[in-house]
Amino acid sequence: MSTDLLDRTVAEIAEEMAQRTDRGEVANYIPELARVDPQGFGLVVIDADGHVAAGGDADLPFSIQSISKVFTLTLALGKAGDRVWRRVGREPSGTAFNSIVQLERERGIPRNPFINAGAIAVTDLILSGHQPREALGEILRFMQFLAADSAITIDEAVAASEQRTGFRNAALANYMKSFGVLDNPVDYTLGVYFHHCAIAMSCRQLAMAGRFLAHNGRNPSTGHNVVSAQRARRINALMLTCGHYDGSGEFAYRVGLPGKSGVGGGVLAVAPGKASIAVWSPGLDASGNSHLGRIALEALTKRLGWSIFGV
Amino acid sequence: MSTDLLDRTVAEIAEEMAQRTDRGEVANYIPELARVDPQGFGLVVIDADGHVAAGGDADLPFSIQSISKVFTLTLALGKAGDRVWRRVGREPSGTAFNSIVQLERERGIPRNPFINAGAIAVTDLILSGHQPREALGEILRFMQFLAADSAITIDEAVAASEQRTGFRNAALANYMKSFGVLDNPVDYTLGVYFHHCAIAMSCRQLAMAGRFLAHNGRNPSTGHNVVSAQRARRINALMLTCGHYDGSGEFAYRVGLPGKSGVGGGVLAVAPGKASIAVWSPGLDASGNSHLGRIALEALTKRLGWSIFGV
Amino acid sequence: MSTDLLDRTVAEIAEEMAQRTDRGEVANYIPELARVDPQGFGLVVIDADGHVAAGGDADLPFSIQSISKVFTLTLALGKAGDRVWRRVGREPSGTAFNSIVQLERERGIPRNPFINAGAIAVTDLILSGHQPREALGEILRFMQFLAADSAITIDEAVAASEQRTGFRNAALANYMKSFGVLDNPVDYTLGVYFHHCAIAMSCRQLAMAGRFLAHNGRNPSTGHNVVSAQRARRINALMLTCGHYDGSGEFAYRVGLPGKSGVGGGVLAVAPGKASIAVWSPGLDASGNSHLGRIALEALTKRLGWSIFGV
Amino acid sequence: MSTDLLDRTVAEIAEEMAQRTDRGEVANYIPELARVDPQGFGLVVIDADGHVAAGGDADLPFSIQSISKVFTLTLALGKAGDRVWRRVGREPSGTAFNSIVQLERERGIPRNPFINAGAIAVTDLILSGHQPREALGEILRFMQFLAADSAITIDEAVAASEQRTGFRNAALANYMKSFGVLDNPVDYTLGVYFHHCAIAMSCRQLAMAGRFLAHNGRNPSTGHNVVSAQRARRINALMLTCGHYDGSGEFAYRVGLPGKSGVGGGVLAVAPGKASIAVWSPGLDASGNSHLGRIALEALTKRLGWSIFGV
Repeated sequence: MSTDLLDRTVAEIAEEMAQRTDRGEVANYIPELARVDPQGFGLVVIDADGHVAAGGDADLPFSIQSISKVFTLTLALGKAGDRVWRRVGREPSGTAFNSIVQLERERGIPRNPFINAGAIAVTDLILSGHQPREALGEILRFMQFLAADSAITIDEAVAASEQRTGFRNAALANYMKSFGVLDNPVDYTLGVYFHHCAIAMSCRQLAMAGRFLAHNGRNPSTGHNVVSAQRARRINALMLTCGHYDGSGEFAYRVGLPGKSGVGGGVLAVAPGKASIAVWSPGLDASGNSHLGRIALEALTKRLGWSIFGV
Repeated sequence: MSTDLLDRTVAEIAEEMAQRTDRGEVANYIPELARVDPQGFGLVVIDADGHVAAGGDADLPFSIQSISKVFTLTLALGKAGDRVWRRVGREPSGTAFNSIVQLERERGIPRNPFINAGAIAVTDLILSGHQPREALGEILRFMQFLAADSAITIDEAVAASEQRTGFRNAALANYMKSFGVLDNPVDYTLGVYFHHCAIAMSCRQLAMAGRFLAHNGRNPSTGHNVVSAQRARRINALMLTCGHYDGSGEFAYRVGLPGKSGVGGGVLAVAPGKASIAVWSPGLDASGNSHLGRIALEALTKRLGWSIFGV
Repeated sequence: MSTDLLDRTVAEIAEEMAQRTDRGEVANYIPELARVDPQGFGLVVIDADGHVAAGGDADLPFSIQSISKVFTLTLALGKAGDRVWRRVGREPSGTAFNSIVQLERERGIPRNPFINAGAIAVTDLILSGHQPREALGEILRFMQFLAADSAITIDEAVAASEQRTGFRNAALANYMKSFGVLDNPVDYTLGVYFHHCAIAMSCRQLAMAGRFLAHNGRNPSTGHNVVSAQRARRINALMLTCGHYDGSGEFAYRVGLPGKSGVGGGVLAVAPGKASIAVWSPGLDASGNSHLGRIALEALTKRLGWSIFGV
Repeated sequence: MSTDLLDRTVAEIAEEMAQRTDRGEVANYIPELARVDPQGFGLVVIDADGHVAAGGDADLPFSIQSISKVFTLTLALGKAGDRVWRRVGREPSGTAFNSIVQLERERGIPRNPFINAGAIAVTDLILSGHQPREALGEILRFMQFLAADSAITIDEAVAASEQRTGFRNAALANYMKSFGVLDNPVDYTLGVYFHHCAIAMSCRQLAMAGRFLAHNGRNPSTGHNVVSAQRARRINALMLTCGHYDGSGEFAYRVGLPGKSGVGGGVLAVAPGKASIAVWSPGLDASGNSHLGRIALEALTKRLGWSIFGV
């Protein structure tokens, strides 16, 4: 594909999105997220050659929230390998992102690593035997390494706010703890979880960080092998089936790419062999996924023929 | 890819599968399925050029069961377009194939067209305004057309047995009827449903019938356009997220292809742009999907690099 | 207690109820129930000496609906004894009267004989080895015997209407059948069930029929022993904990008597050792129980000091 | 009733229970409960005249656990009246004592004050505006007052152990907090909850404390009015429908008295107008209620004719 076509497509979509008036609802459960401008929109695509096509607020940092779950899963798989799957499943949940019902039915084992309970269980695995501060440092350094940008930080106000109001997550964590699924003190695990969700990144940084997933586990520019090709495929498969909570089927149906969304309005999507994509728009749809983010990705895959479900 | 490599790979896998002693459990809820030989295994791959690589019992007909749901969905979309989505969703179910719990929570609307309730709702849409015999004839002729083989028939003994014992499906149908989701008499809809599940096909016939899904909605040999490219992609997406009941995440994780399984032990899988694949082995795993079928497909995609989640 | 006080109290309450404007909503899922006059109200109390205090429409027949479940349980216990409890539990359901969710969790065993599924399972037990017509005749004769009134009949129009539209009950029955909880053909069992729910009785007849429950299993006027004293107590206990669907706790809290309601607006209540009580008013509350029926019974037990929870 | 018959019956039952070998399973989730001798059994009945019939370990203190919920509900009703019912329902739960599923379905409102979630919500109401220490002091003094025994204390080892391991309760509390059902910091509320469950009392003390429930809200010996007659009846009704978790129906069916059990093996039962009864045996049945406690009460009500469901 010519970089020209890519640049033009990204620019067009950014423009179209800027003009839309349907923007979804900005998450309002903490003030730090609620006051983000609903007009914001950013889109960055980095192709196999490292060419960056950027549109809109490509360099504005936003709270990556649940998108961090892709990276904590990657880290945990690196540390614990298939032991990860003893405490978290690999099936879509069929329920909302913060549902506790499924945990009761399945004795504290979350269905997948991308719903809140599953990500908390994964965080607990990263934490094992360390202080929260150390585990958090490791996660942050991993993000900086992947994005090749040491300026990435945690938004402490967001983390503090989540910690103050995150009763639902505390319920999930205590519930899993009651089944022996968590090893560390609940407060430690939740502390790390709330903080890695509060990492702030721009679309540019996020797309950069996701490149290894698009290219068989390897960043094609630096040549760094982050994970094996098989593991990259498997993380992509999990993103496809579970990456958008109870809107995962819809995302696969409309966009046709593995992707992971966050309530901050960001989405990381992967076109295997072709590109790493980050989009951001803070208004959410009913399933808690970025409204314009999904629409922009649907337009992108359609125009570029990037769906993994056809050629 | 050389047809040579494809032939060799299929032959190797067929041989490996023949030697395995772990074969799962043959479905035993009706005698007609229970008496199938657990040693059976067939694999057929048809590539974009129409080359057929066949291994094992490639021409032995088996009961396609839920695989028929892919084709009834295709038919229903052709007749009713997006009206299909008023009565059935597009999300993974998070529960077993015959669960009724979700129907209560969501007022009779099945989560997707590939769980039993969803397929019954789709069948009801095909039936609308016709006699069961006519609707069934239409479905059968569609299968014969797709497989280019007028010898395909319905196994009446299987259909009769299902009808005699299908109380769970009758519960699902009556439940949906109570919410107004079905238009036709419950007995009519169930009759058509039980019969299209009882269609008997060989791996060769099934792989042939699935070719349009691998090639943007068009059979590349005959040039027949079955559905639009977009619709083919979307059906593939649904197969990926929902095609293996509560083992869909696992299938995506291990195999990395859209696929639909049936309790008769068959699986139809699609490698977009590359091939249509049918595999059969009657022993099932705990999720009700073909045990060796999944293992064979995992080996195939790994050796040929066909996963849609990496290149 | 003087019969005078009883007569006066019943008359007062009937008058108070006639004047209330809050009357609930008449059941409207079948036309035969929907066209009942919402102004209707009847109350009959028969004390230990057989004195009858009657108010309002005491002799107007109404559809007893689920109140029949008390009597079919009594019959089934007489025929099968504790075998009844192999197919139905004795716990409150915690869900609506026609919920199917619980059946999935508990493998087809209904929680108690007074929710629809449980009553269908009990009906199936009465039916065992007989034609529907015979079983129904037996139930009807039992009601006539208890009420000492051979004029009691089944409202065939109601039964036919229920049969035509009872898809939810058909779902429950088929679901239980799939777990082997029902012995007879589903249509047979449902036929008997719909018909015994369609028995029409007046408050006078109903209060008469319930006398054995108030007096240790024995009708004190005729001296007929219907059940043992222990069995009468136990049926009363089941009515107290399960007799008002998901409003059973509320009924116990406010009225303080064992009671069983029906969607026709009737309630049979039992003041052990004191009286058998029938009330009818067709408007229902949110839990599907007679709105004024409950209010009238609350007033009655308060004024007469009849709650079983205090003296 | 002659005190003689009462004394003899209590003595006989105590003897019979001592000889039984089926004793259930002692709760083992904390070491303090696990090491209680399974052979223990105590029974105390106090009649309307204040006569005390005692058998077995009548003066051995045990952990009253959930029986405390009856008294915290009484206190909360005294403080907040019907405001209690804004945050907790009055219906049986249909699920285990510590289920969280129901909370999700009903937006954080527990079904009744006797399941754990409901009792935590009630505790939160007692706590409102006070320090945990003050609230706890109030509860303890209330128990001492009711039992007329200032020697009653909290077993700090039990409380500390519960606090250390009570993750399931922490999940319930955080879950309700996320719906705004709790006013106080979760740790405060849980602290008070764990401590009032750890109150240690003997059967004699407990039967004494429950006398107001048997006698229209008034202790007939002291003449103290604890609650109104109506409130006493209503608390009894709640005990009948909800006092034994998912074994409440069974207890009503077999025993026929309002009662509240605790995992320490105690049961408080009320025979309105007749007696207050406390029984204790630490082995539990599958629903978490005292195995011999229930059997002893069944024998008692049968022999004395005390069931509220017959005379």
